[in-house]
Amino acid sequence: MIKVGIVGGTGYTGVELLRLLARHPGVRISAITSRSEAGRPVTDLFPNLRGCLDLSFSGPDVKRLGDCDLVFFATPNGTAMQMVPELLETGARVVDLAADFRLGDPDEWAQWYGMPHACPELLDEAVYGLAELNRGLIRNARLVANPGCYPTAVTLGFLPLLETGLVDRWHLIADAKSGVSGAGRKASVGALMGECGESFKAYAAPGHRHLPEIRQTLSRIAGKSVGLTFVPHLVPMIRGIHATLYAGLAEEAGDLQGLFESRYRSEPFVDVLPPGAHPETRSVRGANQCRIAVHRPQGEDTAVVLSVIDNLVKGAAGQAVQNMNLMFGLEETAGLDAIALLP
Amino acid sequence: MIKVGIVGGTGYTGVELLRLLARHPGVRISAITSRSEAGRPVTDLFPNLRGCLDLSFSGPDVKRLGDCDLVFFATPNGTAMQMVPELLETGARVVDLAADFRLGDPDEWAQWYGMPHACPELLDEAVYGLAELNRGLIRNARLVANPGCYPTAVTLGFLPLLETGLVDRWHLIADAKSGVSGAGRKASVGALMGECGESFKAYAAPGHRHLPEIRQTLSRIAGKSVGLTFVPHLVPMIRGIHATLYAGLAEEAGDLQGLFESRYRSEPFVDVLPPGAHPETRSVRGANQCRIAVHRPQGEDTAVVLSVIDNLVKGAAGQAVQNMNLMFGLEETAGLDAIALLP
Amino acid sequence: MIKVGIVGGTGYTGVELLRLLARHPGVRISAITSRSEAGRPVTDLFPNLRGCLDLSFSGPDVKRLGDCDLVFFATPNGTAMQMVPELLETGARVVDLAADFRLGDPDEWAQWYGMPHACPELLDEAVYGLAELNRGLIRNARLVANPGCYPTAVTLGFLPLLETGLVDRWHLIADAKSGVSGAGRKASVGALMGECGESFKAYAAPGHRHLPEIRQTLSRIAGKSVGLTFVPHLVPMIRGIHATLYAGLAEEAGDLQGLFESRYRSEPFVDVLPPGAHPETRSVRGANQCRIAVHRPQGEDTAVVLSVIDNLVKGAAGQAVQNMNLMFGLEETAGLDAIALLP
Amino acid sequence: MIKVGIVGGTGYTGVELLRLLARHPGVRISAITSRSEAGRPVTDLFPNLRGCLDLSFSGPDVKRLGDCDLVFFATPNGTAMQMVPELLETGARVVDLAADFRLGDPDEWAQWYGMPHACPELLDEAVYGLAELNRGLIRNARLVANPGCYPTAVTLGFLPLLETGLVDRWHLIADAKSGVSGAGRKASVGALMGECGESFKAYAAPGHRHLPEIRQTLSRIAGKSVGLTFVPHLVPMIRGIHATLYAGLAEEAGDLQGLFESRYRSEPFVDVLPPGAHPETRSVRGANQCRIAVHRPQGEDTAVVLSVIDNLVKGAAGQAVQNMNLMFGLEETAGLDAIALLP
Repeated sequence: MIKVGIVGGTGYTGVELLRLLARHPGVRISAITSRSEAGRPVTDLFPNLRGCLDLSFSGPDVKRLGDCDLVFFATPNGTAMQMVPELLETGARVVDLAADFRLGDPDEWAQWYGMPHACPELLDEAVYGLAELNRGLIRNARLVANPGCYPTAVTLGFLPLLETGLVDRWHLIADAKSGVSGAGRKASVGALMGECGESFKAYAAPGHRHLPEIRQTLSRIAGKSVGLTFVPHLVPMIRGIHATLYAGLAEEAGDLQGLFESRYRSEPFVDVLPPGAHPETRSVRGANQCRIAVHRPQGEDTAVVLSVIDNLVKGAAGQAVQNMNLMFGLEETAGLDAIALLP
Repeated sequence: MIKVGIVGGTGYTGVELLRLLARHPGVRISAITSRSEAGRPVTDLFPNLRGCLDLSFSGPDVKRLGDCDLVFFATPNGTAMQMVPELLETGARVVDLAADFRLGDPDEWAQWYGMPHACPELLDEAVYGLAELNRGLIRNARLVANPGCYPTAVTLGFLPLLETGLVDRWHLIADAKSGVSGAGRKASVGALMGECGESFKAYAAPGHRHLPEIRQTLSRIAGKSVGLTFVPHLVPMIRGIHATLYAGLAEEAGDLQGLFESRYRSEPFVDVLPPGAHPETRSVRGANQCRIAVHRPQGEDTAVVLSVIDNLVKGAAGQAVQNMNLMFGLEETAGLDAIALLP
Repeated sequence: MIKVGIVGGTGYTGVELLRLLARHPGVRISAITSRSEAGRPVTDLFPNLRGCLDLSFSGPDVKRLGDCDLVFFATPNGTAMQMVPELLETGARVVDLAADFRLGDPDEWAQWYGMPHACPELLDEAVYGLAELNRGLIRNARLVANPGCYPTAVTLGFLPLLETGLVDRWHLIADAKSGVSGAGRKASVGALMGECGESFKAYAAPGHRHLPEIRQTLSRIAGKSVGLTFVPHLVPMIRGIHATLYAGLAEEAGDLQGLFESRYRSEPFVDVLPPGAHPETRSVRGANQCRIAVHRPQGEDTAVVLSVIDNLVKGAAGQAVQNMNLMFGLEETAGLDAIALLP
Repeated sequence: MIKVGIVGGTGYTGVELLRLLARHPGVRISAITSRSEAGRPVTDLFPNLRGCLDLSFSGPDVKRLGDCDLVFFATPNGTAMQMVPELLETGARVVDLAADFRLGDPDEWAQWYGMPHACPELLDEAVYGLAELNRGLIRNARLVANPGCYPTAVTLGFLPLLETGLVDRWHLIADAKSGVSGAGRKASVGALMGECGESFKAYAAPGHRHLPEIRQTLSRIAGKSVGLTFVPHLVPMIRGIHATLYAGLAEEAGDLQGLFESRYRSEPFVDVLPPGAHPETRSVRGANQCRIAVHRPQGEDTAVVLSVIDNLVKGAAGQAVQNMNLMFGLEETAGLDAIALLP
């Protein structure tokens, strides 16, 4: 049994990790920390776990965490980088679900996250935890940067097109839509149901923090710089991300459906839908899946890719467990076989 | 492995049965029937099952179904009673998720369901499938009438009070609220999101079909007639039932919390919350659980019981699987350990 | 033109007042105050008002407010009572949409609101602003206590039954359901869409602040004490309250439908639906209406009343405007003729 | 007073027309027809209109309708074209809210709507009822084709860019999102709340009927052919359309904000938001408004326009009333000054 710890367990990513890990056959949850809730049973906050998890929050203590084989950080941006260096020295391995280790360039990180990076020396070592791209590296990583939710949906959608160089890489467009759980579980006026229920809007059109992350990954895939317009939107639902991707096609672009199917044939968590399909976010609710459809409307020179994930699962906690499975030599799908809840 | 068949698999109860059974360790799904969708892969209708279930709908054929150890009916009211007598003769056992075998009195059935009963001779044999009440009988039953969703939530809430005779049994009030999936997956104007989204209403106040079912069970529990006012309401959400129950307390009524806790201590699927709590429907979303809290507001002589279930799980498919587990000597909780999806 | 001021204009009650007053034919909005947003255009916060209202928030200044004919308080509980005495001396009249002047007994107020009352000497003068009960008094009032949202829906539903003494007044039950805007527009975890979307729950079953308010009004109507169990619930929608009321009927109770129709025949804002109907909250969305249906299920001795309002209109801002119209001799319906938005 | 008739009043467009016209100062509703509901009071179907409209549905009778000054068709596609020729001969003028007269080319119409056009001779005469484009023509039109909901939001967003020729007109992208009321009020599985609640999806990516309509209008504006990729999506909310538009900018493109502001300065129903803003659909809920923001993310060569309307108001009934006002020489804003309902 792998001994795991979770730092920052009071948010949506935290409770989702608990839901997955409490039923994982190869894991024992050893500690879950929260400064503000230390001492309180986890089920007080999350009654869905009653009867399934007998654990209380504890204060964040590197010694206790260092006892774990693996520590997940489900903390706000900027927290993990304060503790990770010390923690790695204890021999524990780390999956950070926040953004601290996602960007390779500490200056770019500082610019987008508004603070200097606390341990830039680890950025090179950190592996970007998208198994469909970096499976081999993840297996041996000490430190995995779990991808953002938007970046997961967008990257998996563009991946086959960019790998093959079939698209105009300078004018990629990602029109992405997220449920409100993406904003987290902290009190804020903007995330009140009275504010975001029964309404739809774009936000951060001038520049969202996931833009440099996506651009970095797409550039690595393409092997050269890409140009990307990324506009996120807020959907009045709780879970789910839908990315609608547009790319100009090169003349030699042929069978897009075949391209996607062959790229993802052996991926356990990417499902290419049949031609003409439109994935719904509910088809992945609660499941560690990305479902993708590819279209070429009216036979014109624009490809349209539709990509859906559950932002809290394949976009966060599920992907983190997938990474853990790889890091510890478990079956990649262990603990991740739940079927999406529909309706 | 138990061989099971499902009759009528295109509704919400059907897809939920499939979700649970596809991951059940002791079951093989042998047939799923639908007259209208015969020949079509199940995953065409329910893409959440892609990769988890490789089965197509077939026409309803008693011979093929008779080959099963157990047949679930997830059909509209009035369908099961047409096939069950012939099916039982083949040796298959049956769990009917519709209402055909819930009422003991065929005349009362005919009055509420608007058609004569097709096999009244089976009503005595049929066991009302509420394990918390009839566990022993269910184990040996050939034919189980799976309780309705409202009746499950209401009965489990009133049960300890009526068993002990602590309440005025003539003026029980059940104010119940259901998500829209309770209305099923058939096209209707009333269940359009444009009609029932962002709105709340009562319906069937003069008399709902679950009234006689609840009254019958409560009377059996009390050992004598009861008087019940039952008002269902429609909530703009998909899953979940919340029953708010009111009962006048006898003078000798004492520690209600203790009463509930001791009654349900060994029940795997009923969870009595601590004093002062208010269960949320989301705390049981996707899970075979009933969570209950009991209050005595202002110390007055009225008990208030709050009882929540997922109408599609403990209120339908999950309870059916629980009954199957009992009927076939499996662990009662087999295949039913999923944790509720929150948020 | 009546000159009005609004204190505390950044919440849902405030923006709703602005929506109604900006189109009111007899009103000029002279000031809208907010300590935190002083100097900011109102339309920054509420873009629905763009082009309809050219006003900025100002600091709360008694002198400027005293210049108004009428001041609305749309502030948290405990704020109005600090300013009202001084304001009344300037000659301005006041409608308080919070709870400061709703209870006649300052000790009871202190007990439920957790602070001593700042001007108990005004409690006797304050008129409870339910026009259907106190129309005459409101016309001449200097200080009107606008009723709470739950109390409005519950009181209008019980009123005809209690006035005529046809019910067991010791065991009244009010099972009430509210949309989330009732919780206001301040940041809180509990009102996040991630917390209250797609879920349903009761809250404050042991005792909600609206309990003493409702009990006080019902007792005044009945002319003697009443016993009331009041359980509020949170509905995953934005606007609307649905009260389901239960009362034991006296033997002589006859034609309930006729009773309700005759009581409310001349009320412009109470609509008694035909027999057998079930009002939907959306039928009053955005409108200053209460729609009511009365049932006697199965002909038994329990009356069931269904009463719906928009909590922000007839339950708050609309009722406040109705009171203003009465206080200033305008047509009672002036500015309140909008039709509910359906769907 | 203008005498108006409405053909097909049982859908969402119909009830919205009634809501607007019942409060319009210059209109008398003379007839509202429905084959299926003839004889039934309108308020039976739409209780929000109780007390505001005393009218029953009647059968569709050209003679009675011919008595009207103006007839609105709120019927399914293909109905208006059967009655309009005869109706125009009576002297009545017509606004068709369906698609029958929107495309200039009868062959293209037949291809997209799956039936031959019944009166192609009227297509040239019909005026496309987008006042911001065709105000003068509308004033004198006998027959107005009210624009589709998506086309309204998309066209108003692209209009300033295309008029000035500042964008790559061959690769326009419109990623559009609509609430479910856009699917109408007829029974269908896909529009059940159980199907489209808490989920998000694209649909009709290969080609939606609004594609040729938008392309036709954009081409007229540009004065030459355009290339457009249009992907509609379904949002789990009732009202509202959000169009996110992408266009490659020509090098000489300068101050986009100024361009939009000057183009729409005198338009009563188009509101250009300040730089950096993101319009929410709720800011136009129930109002005849289009709110627009224009962005140029990261200063790159892609313009992003965000455009929101209420699909039932500026996207249907409200725009129809706006057209009526123009046709009959009324104030263009008459009856259309309601403020959006927020929250």
